[in-house]
Amino acid sequence: MTLSNDKLKETTVSTEHVFTGKVISLQIDTVQLPDGSQGKREIVKHPGAVAVLAVRNGRLLLVDQYRQALGRCELEIPAGKLEQGEDPLEAARRELEEETGYRCSKLSLLHSFYTSPGFADEIIHLYLAENLAEGEASPDEDEFLEIIEATFDETQQYIAEGRISDAKTILAAYIWQQRLSVHSGSQGA
Amino acid sequence: MTLSNDKLKETTVSTEHVFTGKVISLQIDTVQLPDGSQGKREIVKHPGAVAVLAVRNGRLLLVDQYRQALGRCELEIPAGKLEQGEDPLEAARRELEEETGYRCSKLSLLHSFYTSPGFADEIIHLYLAENLAEGEASPDEDEFLEIIEATFDETQQYIAEGRISDAKTILAAYIWQQRLSVHSGSQGA
Repeated sequence: MTLSNDKLKETTVSTEHVFTGKVISLQIDTVQLPDGSQGKREIVKHPGAVAVLAVRNGRLLLVDQYRQALGRCELEIPAGKLEQGEDPLEAARRELEEETGYRCSKLSLLHSFYTSPGFADEIIHLYLAENLAEGEASPDEDEFLEIIEATFDETQQYIAEGRISDAKTILAAYIWQQRLSVHSGSQGA
Repeated sequence: MTLSNDKLKETTVSTEHVFTGKVISLQIDTVQLPDGSQGKREIVKHPGAVAVLAVRNGRLLLVDQYRQALGRCELEIPAGKLEQGEDPLEAARRELEEETGYRCSKLSLLHSFYTSPGFADEIIHLYLAENLAEGEASPDEDEFLEIIEATFDETQQYIAEGRISDAKTILAAYIWQQRLSVHSGSQGA
């Protein structure tokens, strides 16, 4: 199987730019559907982001942060948007240190995934950080954060309570669990 | 720890409605930050969605579908938006049958998660479907789909190739893997 399935392909007829913001922009694409008819697709454009699975002394690094879209705080793994032209690996290193104060000497890509392919092009590059050392946190000026270090059981409890409730962090918890069972008895990631 | 962390709370000062579409709407919230200064938050409103982890005879049900946001086809687990006032469990049952033609007699909620809490309120309710029986597929009129039934190894291969590249489907694959190793030797989900 290849990446293209021509029977299902939609072709862009026109694009209407509706909004350009600081984080996202919005466009309405008119597309020609496989049966020849036309449809509209509402598309959010996003610069992409990185997220970091970082475990130190058997504890997952989490960031507590207010999320206006949810109207409440949420615990998430460290993450942030890509800056213009920025390499995702460098962005992951930067976000980890800015948000948590930890540096790492090894970063490996676990997955790159789309968060909402039905209406957005946001992609998140999820890295595993290893060999953590303390540095200095320096969040962006409009970021207000608290760092939480959670054991595996605490992480599961936060998921059950809804304190952790976003896709990337729940996915990271499963990856952590899988790695724990692969390296059984290990406290690392 | 409670769900609120008052030190991090942002308060909505005003909301500007920018766009209302068929799937999403967009608003700009002006918020008061914890230090008393003001910031802007670009927020996409979405009705919420359901997704279904369904395994039949050791094969994961996947839907091949063109995604305009990505400019290509993608394999995803069956999923769809909630209709106005619709119960998520009923929506999961409906989407599974509409998209794949399979009915199921048992649906259990695995996780409800936000896809992009930084800029969107979309929540996906992910269900495990059991006891599948053949029914009749009836996709929406602007949905063009193909059903793929993938073994566990094929699913891993699709993830490695990027044919599966969205958060909910990769998460579902980890959950499937965990359940396979819990019920070791079983071919069920």
